[in-house]
Amino acid sequence: MPDFNWIPKSEFHRLNESGLNDHVKYGIIADMCRANTLTSVKIAGSGHLGSSFSAMDIAVYLYYKQMNTIELGFEDPDRDIYFSSKGHDVPGLYAVLYSLGVLTRDQLLKLRRLEGLDGHPDISINGIEANSGSLGMGISKAKGMAIAKRMSGHGGNVYVLTGDGELQEGQIYESLQTASHHAVNNLIAIIDHNKVQSDKRVDEITNLGKLEEKLALFGWHVERCDGHDFKQLDAVMGEFQKITDRPKVLIADTIKGKGISFMEHPQALKDGKGLYHWHSGAPDDKSFQNGFNELIDRINVALRAQNFNDIILEPVPPIDKPGSCVSNEYVVVAYGEALLDIVKKNKKVVVLDADLAADCRIRKCEDAYPNQFIECGIAEQDMVSTAGGLAIQGYIPIVNSFAAFLASRANEQIYTNACENTKIIYTFHYAGLIPAGPGKSHQSIRDISLLGALPNLEIIQPCNAVETKMALNYCVYEAENSCMLRLIIGPSPLIVDLPSGYRLKKGRGLVIREGKDGVLFTYGPVMIHEAIKSHELLLDEGYTLKIVNMPWLNRVDVDWLRQCVKDINSVYVLEDHAANGGLGDFLLRKMVKESILMQKSFEIMAVEEMPAWGNPAEVLKHHGVDHESLKKKILKTIAKCSFPSNK
Amino acid sequence: MPDFNWIPKSEFHRLNESGLNDHVKYGIIADMCRANTLTSVKIAGSGHLGSSFSAMDIAVYLYYKQMNTIELGFEDPDRDIYFSSKGHDVPGLYAVLYSLGVLTRDQLLKLRRLEGLDGHPDISINGIEANSGSLGMGISKAKGMAIAKRMSGHGGNVYVLTGDGELQEGQIYESLQTASHHAVNNLIAIIDHNKVQSDKRVDEITNLGKLEEKLALFGWHVERCDGHDFKQLDAVMGEFQKITDRPKVLIADTIKGKGISFMEHPQALKDGKGLYHWHSGAPDDKSFQNGFNELIDRINVALRAQNFNDIILEPVPPIDKPGSCVSNEYVVVAYGEALLDIVKKNKKVVVLDADLAADCRIRKCEDAYPNQFIECGIAEQDMVSTAGGLAIQGYIPIVNSFAAFLASRANEQIYTNACENTKIIYTFHYAGLIPAGPGKSHQSIRDISLLGALPNLEIIQPCNAVETKMALNYCVYEAENSCMLRLIIGPSPLIVDLPSGYRLKKGRGLVIREGKDGVLFTYGPVMIHEAIKSHELLLDEGYTLKIVNMPWLNRVDVDWLRQCVKDINSVYVLEDHAANGGLGDFLLRKMVKESILMQKSFEIMAVEEMPAWGNPAEVLKHHGVDHESLKKKILKTIAKCSFPSNK
Repeated sequence: MPDFNWIPKSEFHRLNESGLNDHVKYGIIADMCRANTLTSVKIAGSGHLGSSFSAMDIAVYLYYKQMNTIELGFEDPDRDIYFSSKGHDVPGLYAVLYSLGVLTRDQLLKLRRLEGLDGHPDISINGIEANSGSLGMGISKAKGMAIAKRMSGHGGNVYVLTGDGELQEGQIYESLQTASHHAVNNLIAIIDHNKVQSDKRVDEITNLGKLEEKLALFGWHVERCDGHDFKQLDAVMGEFQKITDRPKVLIADTIKGKGISFMEHPQALKDGKGLYHWHSGAPDDKSFQNGFNELIDRINVALRAQNFNDIILEPVPPIDKPGSCVSNEYVVVAYGEALLDIVKKNKKVVVLDADLAADCRIRKCEDAYPNQFIECGIAEQDMVSTAGGLAIQGYIPIVNSFAAFLASRANEQIYTNACENTKIIYTFHYAGLIPAGPGKSHQSIRDISLLGALPNLEIIQPCNAVETKMALNYCVYEAENSCMLRLIIGPSPLIVDLPSGYRLKKGRGLVIREGKDGVLFTYGPVMIHEAIKSHELLLDEGYTLKIVNMPWLNRVDVDWLRQCVKDINSVYVLEDHAANGGLGDFLLRKMVKESILMQKSFEIMAVEEMPAWGNPAEVLKHHGVDHESLKKKILKTIAKCSFPSNK
Repeated sequence: MPDFNWIPKSEFHRLNESGLNDHVKYGIIADMCRANTLTSVKIAGSGHLGSSFSAMDIAVYLYYKQMNTIELGFEDPDRDIYFSSKGHDVPGLYAVLYSLGVLTRDQLLKLRRLEGLDGHPDISINGIEANSGSLGMGISKAKGMAIAKRMSGHGGNVYVLTGDGELQEGQIYESLQTASHHAVNNLIAIIDHNKVQSDKRVDEITNLGKLEEKLALFGWHVERCDGHDFKQLDAVMGEFQKITDRPKVLIADTIKGKGISFMEHPQALKDGKGLYHWHSGAPDDKSFQNGFNELIDRINVALRAQNFNDIILEPVPPIDKPGSCVSNEYVVVAYGEALLDIVKKNKKVVVLDADLAADCRIRKCEDAYPNQFIECGIAEQDMVSTAGGLAIQGYIPIVNSFAAFLASRANEQIYTNACENTKIIYTFHYAGLIPAGPGKSHQSIRDISLLGALPNLEIIQPCNAVETKMALNYCVYEAENSCMLRLIIGPSPLIVDLPSGYRLKKGRGLVIREGKDGVLFTYGPVMIHEAIKSHELLLDEGYTLKIVNMPWLNRVDVDWLRQCVKDINSVYVLEDHAANGGLGDFLLRKMVKESILMQKSFEIMAVEEMPAWGNPAEVLKHHGVDHESLKKKILKTIAKCSFPSNK
């Protein structure tokens, strides 16, 4: 790891009090905020630099020049309000809030850490005015705030930043229509129009067309300017002040990655051969150092041009980080491989994507079989209903997105498809609690419950790469129903061994650790790892805990289940999910119905609260689903097997 | 009831083979279809006439003139496809399909009846190409079908009809963007632009602005014409044929209620003093007879002008209908009264509506306190996020829509609001299985499961009017969390008596029938009625079944629960919901966790399949949750109390 250096608050104070020309000053401050953003993301190991940088000048401009927020304070009802609807640009916002004394350095150095700062905005953090969900909610929420101000007679405008790819979400148009219908004139939307979404150009994913005309037709006053030019921003804000009969929107032409030459669009897109590599994730050491140096050099050049001293950097103390087990296996890579093979062989299979092709590992399908691939953009509802139409026509659509977005945002569309009794495969990427860095909007611990009440949908989560391939093949070739395939997105903490000749059998789990004092059912690489480690800890205490990998989350072979728990008094279910509506509820209902439970104890260990953000180890512990916590919980109820034999 | 008369298939055949000028012929056929639609809706007791009539000429034109569907048959992959995205105009479509021999008279006379025709489109019915959900899904689905045709090299266009109020749904814009981005040129959308949504003008609810320009900017080829003028429809379809590089949309200017003078907009809106009364529901006897006579008279005038014989009507045989218990109580009326009182007293309460103000009984709030009322149009996601913004600013938003739409379509928005830990009240109208006439898209048997995994949301369903008022007041004045208030929309089958001095106590139910052999927990007027009747049936068999009204669906007072089931061996939960994620799962988990279940039997009686459409009594029986079925199920497991005393 490189040495980390930080631009302390005192330096921002020096600049702010310098008497420098405003526009020059904001430019320097923005670069200083970029440098601190870069450092915090690098230390965190992930985060969104491209958007943080494209939106940085706007955020600096709003807080330093346009808004009364810092002056009045974040509790004042007359304050201006700013928040970002896309949310993933929050590392940049944190740096601005730090520069203004709202957040501390220690908080920024704990980006994506428990008790640090969330990877997406969370209202519990100082200066954060609203949470973001998946994309597209911000204008609606800002409108609610603006209407509230109007109702209560409070002053201040509400400024909400959106992405440009975000304009593919339908809710945006709902909010555009209603805000203009209600003439919400204290609402200002700013579109960070950096022309690139996850890793491709917006006009390549889903073209937005003539944006100015569109927004004007939706009844908004529209301005457009260079979002890095403070003079132009001045002019636009001046115009906005004159408009009092409608909501206002600025199309801010920006550069994704602005401030670090090799991250800037369009060069970065050329370098990446059409793919933008700086949307999310932390840069490698060399890129970090080069980028940091470039920023500091430019800051110093600007300072010297004004006869100011160079920027003072302070070294960052080493950051303590709990280790997490990681293997070299990604189940999602196996998924991508199996999918490629299926698409090649089966011309009735169509893969659908909502601008997450890289994360979902379906880019190879897109490149190799473009005629069997539909890029839907950031429009999950449209994607799912499109899949419905394809399925009615006899195709087998495989729908990909993050579980948190797909299960909830497109829930009714999935239900409507299910009402048609067609077969569709929904792949829920990024299922479960981990990785926890991106926070509540991305962690998916409700998805099983969100689809569990569909009688004709099977939910499966594989434990490793091999089982992932089996599961996808089962969904495509064997399942009669629609399927939901639940996958973690990160590396498997360890690679689960499967016996040779192992085959998926509907409703049956696999014993991966033998035991007779208790039995624990769980699923997915993250929780199986914790379960195995708790098995080992319990061995030290003299107990044997049978561990069952249960990939079927809403189907069970009752005879197998009866046999599996026979002569065992204590039954546990470990969820990578909330307690409500997970595997535990399902198994408990079955065991009671089939008179299997009888006198056994039954305990569900699950995420009981809203999911916390942070590093995997600390978040698992926080929710009491790490192996140490499991051991403690299990020791309270496990009883030595009293049966003479157990097989 | 009036005598019913029917226009038989032979009369459509006579017209179709008459050699009459096409446009004259279609006009007569459309009126004939209107007459049969009117009769089937009147017999059904409900249905959507206004939209069925505004879209009728278009449906007739498409099937009789434009499409190859009837000629090729509904199995031919090269056929043209038509379906309606709004779906509630399906009675009109059924009449057209009947006229063409696709459906039978007996089916149409069983509109909204089990094994008859669904109140909304269902793909299991002949000639129905897709289900509708809540509004806004159709263009996406049609696009999927059109892409499938393109991929497989099949001919035929896909025609999808949308409403105009439906254009308030965001998914519409997702689908407009992606269809044009993918240049889906075999897709034709037709907007039934009748200018009126549920009961108000579209431009009053949420103005659509310059529709032609908007649609063109979204990349579609746009035409506009009188949707009742077959010559103009000819011209438009001719134009569409020339356009091969993009999707096409027709804005069809239509008249809501077209064909029956007093149902026609704008006169009908004037007569209703700004409210349109013929959107849903069946007309009274006199209106039915006047409307039917008007149609038949016009048909005969047109026939005579062509020297044709008058239309031959055949009498409709009496329709057998199972009776359903109905009292004069509507819990939703009590809700409306309580809400009016709360809004009057508490200026921080804001009521939000998504174009269902009449059904949700919040119109009085709208009229009396317009400053505390926000009409959001048919845009549930925007409504919920707007509520989120209001709540952040210290207001208490009360969000109203049908449960099926709100719980699923706005699920992620509700979650994101919950992440902010503000307090919002979501009123889920039309919760549960009944009324079942409108079918799967409206019956809500998943909503508890859809929000059950939110730790900071309390779910409450009251059993009668009195408890409804208590529950709303609890939500507003006592609850610390957000609340979901679950209400049935129809009349209570019977009025549940509450003891004098009854108060809601969090987590506690109320025993409404004493018993000692078994205990049954249930909620809501529909299921409490079935439970009480099963209690009576079981008494005849010598068993006493304790019936508990349990308004708290995800909170329980454990001590109370322990006491409530003490000395009872058989526990039952009757759901107005699917088994998965309802009250039963919650109570079972609690009883196991708190060692209350022990050796008791526990059975959940719930809707196990996709909900069936039909009359209340037949649908309750179909799903095995009517009192007779309950009795049978309970008799299998109930055991005479073996405890010496029971209190």
